[in-house]
Amino acid sequence: MEEESSQVADHAKTIHDMEEAAEEDRDPESKPLNQPLLKRSRTLSSNPLAMVGAKVSYIESLDYEINENDLFKHDWRSRSKVQVLQYIFLKWTLAFLVGLLTGLIATLINLAIENIAGYKLLAVIHLIQKKRYLTGFIFFTAANFLLALFAAVLCVCFAPTAAGPGIPEIKAYLNGVDTPNMFGAATLIVKIFGSIGAVAAGLDLGKEGPLVHIGACIASLLGQGGPSNYRLKWRWLRYFNNDRDRRDLITCGASSGVCAAFRAPVGGVLFSLEEVATWWRSALLWRTFFSTAVVAVVLRAFIQICSSGECGLFGTGGLIMFDVSNVTITYCVMDIIPVVVIGIIGGVLGSLYNYLLHKVLRLYSFINQKGRLHKLLLSVTVAVFTSACQYGLPFLAKCQPCGSSLSETECPTNGSSGNFKQFNCPAGYYNDLATLLLATNDDAVRHIFSTNTPTEYQIPSLLIFFALYCILGLFTFGIAVPSGLFLPIILMGSGYGRLLGIAMGSYTNIDQGLFAVLGAASLMAGSMRMTVSLCVIFLELTNNLLLLPITMIVLLIAKTVGDSFNPSIYEIILHLKGLPFLDANPEPFMRNLTVGELADVKPQVVTLCGVEKVARIVDVLKNTTHNGFPIVDGGVVAQVGVGNGATELHGIILRAHLLQVLKKKWFLSEKRRTEEWEVREKFTSIELAEREGKFEEVAVAREEMEMYVDLHPLTNTTPFTVMESMSVAKAMVLFRQMGLRHLLIVPKFAGGGVPPVVGILTRQDLRPYNILTAFPHLARPKEGEKEN
Amino acid sequence: MEEESSQVADHAKTIHDMEEAAEEDRDPESKPLNQPLLKRSRTLSSNPLAMVGAKVSYIESLDYEINENDLFKHDWRSRSKVQVLQYIFLKWTLAFLVGLLTGLIATLINLAIENIAGYKLLAVIHLIQKKRYLTGFIFFTAANFLLALFAAVLCVCFAPTAAGPGIPEIKAYLNGVDTPNMFGAATLIVKIFGSIGAVAAGLDLGKEGPLVHIGACIASLLGQGGPSNYRLKWRWLRYFNNDRDRRDLITCGASSGVCAAFRAPVGGVLFSLEEVATWWRSALLWRTFFSTAVVAVVLRAFIQICSSGECGLFGTGGLIMFDVSNVTITYCVMDIIPVVVIGIIGGVLGSLYNYLLHKVLRLYSFINQKGRLHKLLLSVTVAVFTSACQYGLPFLAKCQPCGSSLSETECPTNGSSGNFKQFNCPAGYYNDLATLLLATNDDAVRHIFSTNTPTEYQIPSLLIFFALYCILGLFTFGIAVPSGLFLPIILMGSGYGRLLGIAMGSYTNIDQGLFAVLGAASLMAGSMRMTVSLCVIFLELTNNLLLLPITMIVLLIAKTVGDSFNPSIYEIILHLKGLPFLDANPEPFMRNLTVGELADVKPQVVTLCGVEKVARIVDVLKNTTHNGFPIVDGGVVAQVGVGNGATELHGIILRAHLLQVLKKKWFLSEKRRTEEWEVREKFTSIELAEREGKFEEVAVAREEMEMYVDLHPLTNTTPFTVMESMSVAKAMVLFRQMGLRHLLIVPKFAGGGVPPVVGILTRQDLRPYNILTAFPHLARPKEGEKEN
Repeated sequence: MEEESSQVADHAKTIHDMEEAAEEDRDPESKPLNQPLLKRSRTLSSNPLAMVGAKVSYIESLDYEINENDLFKHDWRSRSKVQVLQYIFLKWTLAFLVGLLTGLIATLINLAIENIAGYKLLAVIHLIQKKRYLTGFIFFTAANFLLALFAAVLCVCFAPTAAGPGIPEIKAYLNGVDTPNMFGAATLIVKIFGSIGAVAAGLDLGKEGPLVHIGACIASLLGQGGPSNYRLKWRWLRYFNNDRDRRDLITCGASSGVCAAFRAPVGGVLFSLEEVATWWRSALLWRTFFSTAVVAVVLRAFIQICSSGECGLFGTGGLIMFDVSNVTITYCVMDIIPVVVIGIIGGVLGSLYNYLLHKVLRLYSFINQKGRLHKLLLSVTVAVFTSACQYGLPFLAKCQPCGSSLSETECPTNGSSGNFKQFNCPAGYYNDLATLLLATNDDAVRHIFSTNTPTEYQIPSLLIFFALYCILGLFTFGIAVPSGLFLPIILMGSGYGRLLGIAMGSYTNIDQGLFAVLGAASLMAGSMRMTVSLCVIFLELTNNLLLLPITMIVLLIAKTVGDSFNPSIYEIILHLKGLPFLDANPEPFMRNLTVGELADVKPQVVTLCGVEKVARIVDVLKNTTHNGFPIVDGGVVAQVGVGNGATELHGIILRAHLLQVLKKKWFLSEKRRTEEWEVREKFTSIELAEREGKFEEVAVAREEMEMYVDLHPLTNTTPFTVMESMSVAKAMVLFRQMGLRHLLIVPKFAGGGVPPVVGILTRQDLRPYNILTAFPHLARPKEGEKEN
Repeated sequence: MEEESSQVADHAKTIHDMEEAAEEDRDPESKPLNQPLLKRSRTLSSNPLAMVGAKVSYIESLDYEINENDLFKHDWRSRSKVQVLQYIFLKWTLAFLVGLLTGLIATLINLAIENIAGYKLLAVIHLIQKKRYLTGFIFFTAANFLLALFAAVLCVCFAPTAAGPGIPEIKAYLNGVDTPNMFGAATLIVKIFGSIGAVAAGLDLGKEGPLVHIGACIASLLGQGGPSNYRLKWRWLRYFNNDRDRRDLITCGASSGVCAAFRAPVGGVLFSLEEVATWWRSALLWRTFFSTAVVAVVLRAFIQICSSGECGLFGTGGLIMFDVSNVTITYCVMDIIPVVVIGIIGGVLGSLYNYLLHKVLRLYSFINQKGRLHKLLLSVTVAVFTSACQYGLPFLAKCQPCGSSLSETECPTNGSSGNFKQFNCPAGYYNDLATLLLATNDDAVRHIFSTNTPTEYQIPSLLIFFALYCILGLFTFGIAVPSGLFLPIILMGSGYGRLLGIAMGSYTNIDQGLFAVLGAASLMAGSMRMTVSLCVIFLELTNNLLLLPITMIVLLIAKTVGDSFNPSIYEIILHLKGLPFLDANPEPFMRNLTVGELADVKPQVVTLCGVEKVARIVDVLKNTTHNGFPIVDGGVVAQVGVGNGATELHGIILRAHLLQVLKKKWFLSEKRRTEEWEVREKFTSIELAEREGKFEEVAVAREEMEMYVDLHPLTNTTPFTVMESMSVAKAMVLFRQMGLRHLLIVPKFAGGGVPPVVGILTRQDLRPYNILTAFPHLARPKEGEKEN
């Protein structure tokens, strides 16, 4: 092991010629400057490509580490009390704005969907009442076709990243992976209108996931001061010009989105904490909570305004989705059995759903790659199929007589909402399947959750409902429109929950509506594998605290059962998209591997001198794709404790900063160290925070090539380091916990001609898949367990 | 800066003579082996003493880092699938048991308190009805005196660590500070019975804090297999023989305690997350949630059993403390004003309370240090004073006529509970102050929270109530009995909340009872500075989701206001006790200091050779008090990339393991490396996990002194390291996030005779106070802000 890892140090004298491993190997054809002296059979691969939205893009890592270079240090020292207060004030103002805007946009979306879908359904019901079934079908299908086409065209043509829920990408961003165009203005707008179109088209997808993404987009745009091309260069905002603060703001945005989707402020905070965020601090908990509180207040005000009937068809629909607070819940010890059964079924079905969805998504990505037309066709095909089923299947159900306890206005109804739809039935009768299918998704959930209606739904109708939504749930998610996963899963889960409730019959006192709620919760836990946050979301949704203990048991069982089969749906999507997400727990085999061994199978590290020739910098930037270069000063003059000729690891410099140097032509005619004022005259920390520089934009004259640059002031002098004997497991935990982009490997030897840095680790190097490719003997399939 | 930090490396040749800085300088008189060559004016102080309970004790750090030595690595490699499943099964079983036992003990405590206090109050009321006021007073005071004496004697004589709430010590434990005797069997038993006595004595303290500590004690005892002297040496438990798993279990225990105290399972989890825990992982969220779910089920079963009246005077008392779910809450936009006012008052009063409590606690610690008798006297004095006030003050209140809407059984009442106490009033009248004072604390809270009773309490009565509980709240907390902080703060807060409700009069529609709830919430936020967890606890307590938005606003305002004055009450207590708690956010001045400069003002690091002489080990253990020693191998034979004569930093060895080596006399007659089987024959990982070894117990014969020990197999080969140029801020974040005990400082120079390790950092070195003592110029009072 030691021999192996120290091979890296073989040619310490040629530090200048060494080269670093590719973090993001943009140009796989580019040959390394020097071939490694030792031919290696195994190399650590890294793939910078990932699916962003439905497109394959290059991805980059984020700089969550504080870049402590001289400019930062100066800024830090000179920061006045007023500036600190400005920063704090701005932080809270932005959190407030994120909440406010998310709340307002959620309001807009709800209003639009309820009105569009409502008028559409009213027209269809009107036609059905006149027995013009075929006209009704054509109208219904055409309306849905157009709405779906609208959403799909927006998505395909203007912002492909707006397709899908966006939650996996937010998860990846908060883990340190920047997916391009994910949080831009175009994505935001397409997401808003695409979501309205897709949900109003009656597709089996929710507005919940998109709302989370919308919250994150708002946060990102606010944090950077507007859309990328028209950014506000407001002085105050410069404190936010770093990935750390933006990360916190996006966490606030994601929480606000969940809160807006479910009116669950605490649930929103916990969702971010449990599912989305990688790093979490107490201070962030508080700020996130503030954002969601603002959203809750906005939504409350909106409901109050709408309760007077000024919002068109909105009425009481939309937001308070599944209020079951009016139910008196009684349950006894024996009720634990149906609860456990629901949990187990939820876990099994949830993991089965994950498995099948994975297959469908792979098929879809194959279709989607064929071009825009294929994407559009797929989307509208699903929309037409959905419409046909929703319209046609209710004809299969038998008409049920209205109960004697129901008034005439209650049953049958012909409005856009109402629990007993007449559809094709004679007066005094209702069609239970039409109640479930010919309604907006929110209404469908409300209908199937309805309590104290033990005889409303027939078993055949529920079976058709469940089967239909299983099929739709699998085939709708992957199409090119903004789509959330929450609602399809809730619909599916409530279907089998209610079926189970009927099957239990007189055995239990639990209401069938609660069975539906528990079924939905179990399937969500079985598929998404959240516990505390789901529990709180359901608590806030159902507004009934007495449900809490049984909900907890259902969630725990469903998650446990699901975890024993496959990972959560978000992890599956992350993997499918190829986003280099770092898991919280290292794989067991990582304990048996040192970072030295890992560095050994990588191309050697490319270092720069503290005062470097321009030609060398240009050369390195052109021929490598690395984003960080260690700065090594050779031949240190003897000091106390340090002999002559020692080399010094000064720190690490980012590619972006090297590009800034070249762009600004901050060149020296002789090889010397600069003073602090010189660099402060030329660079500001705002400029250094920019990441957008491209090497192609730089032009260096031939005579400038022979000049020098003092890289010391721009170097991060406090990079995190590990010894080469460090185990990969520990290094990975360090990397993830500290939110690093580069981790330097220092030798465990002192003296004897060892270079001060023997390697560099990046996110890609720590991914289990990449490691196992280089070290196939480590893969022991029998030990699939992770530590935790 | 560079010159300064490299002075450390001055005498690289004398590595063996170097010595390490004291982590826990047990014997401040012990002289360092070699005086540092450079006389330093400033040194980094470290104080290993802290108040544990009411006693000053030596404290130690915990080993949360995974000690990757050869034995661990072998264990890891040879771990079978079955063992992994055993471990997972055990983890969940223990989490279940923690929940179950905490729930049962909470039941026991509630039953005992309600019955003892209930019969006591019934007897007093009986005497008052007969107008035998003096006898009533004597009986009341004597009963309370005896109960308080019982609690105090238990605490003072058997387990001084059981005094107080215990939450700060749990916080410190989870931060990595081991406070001796804090989680033992004696503490647990004294805490249970002391809490029963103290609360039944009517003292102004709650059972909530003690329940949290009880949960943690149960978890700790289960995790180590029983009390320290009678530990189960069950094979399965050996996987738990490490500080990491015990930490997780104690987090579960603390959550269970909060859940048992407030019947708030989600609130319990969030309390641990927000207030108690330093490290948190998604997996832990789930396990904690499981524990609290078990507690919730146990409590529910218990309430169901007791609702049939088989629990003596328990009845409906005790657990469901402040259910206000039957209130229909209406509030409008204008209600924001009283809500903001409550928040501001809560913040101001909360920070004032923190300030005054700090002063009182300092006074008390002065009294308590004088001996056991003083402690006992202080406790019973407070008890007698409390009794006198509770009995005497109601005589000051005017009798109020019962409203016409109340039935005769409702008003006046003479039972142990009931909202309209007759006390000294004629028939048809009630004494409002007696209702509040002559009841158990839980009942008092229920009475003052009571809704739809706008005329029940008079302003003078509420003023007396508020003033009394302000005084009692300050002077009761520090006495030597188990005491929680939640209830005193709730009582105080509800007092001014209700007063404010009366003052608002017809301006607002919010019920006075809700004002009392909001007042309690605001004072808790103002003093304890929690937000999300308090919000959820209040949500679960009051069982009314409509309160959520205004509770959130109140909490946010109160916390913001409070934070601008002083730190939270737990931080104040932590500071007062001298526990070396590491904050989440580094102080700003830490950015301007490197770890090299820090290492420079410490005594030099003591290193050992890989194969070391016994005499040297004995010498080092005797003359230093450090708990970790870097292992440096000199004169490495030339390898690929490493020249002759290089030194190698092999890792770090713990004092406990050196003691094991000496105890087991694992000595070699010649200087050689051992094989892996040799060490596995002698040591098991269970033995290495023990921490209890003392140097005094070791006897080494004179001839053994010249023998050798191969320390390599016992060395943690993967210690975390930082470069000497690393800033202290980053190093501190690393230290805290990774849960370290030692952090090695490596040189930034390679070659030139630099030693492979130039210093070592411990918890004490990273405390702001210690740093500022050594570098007074860094303290800039104008910048009190922390980063976050």
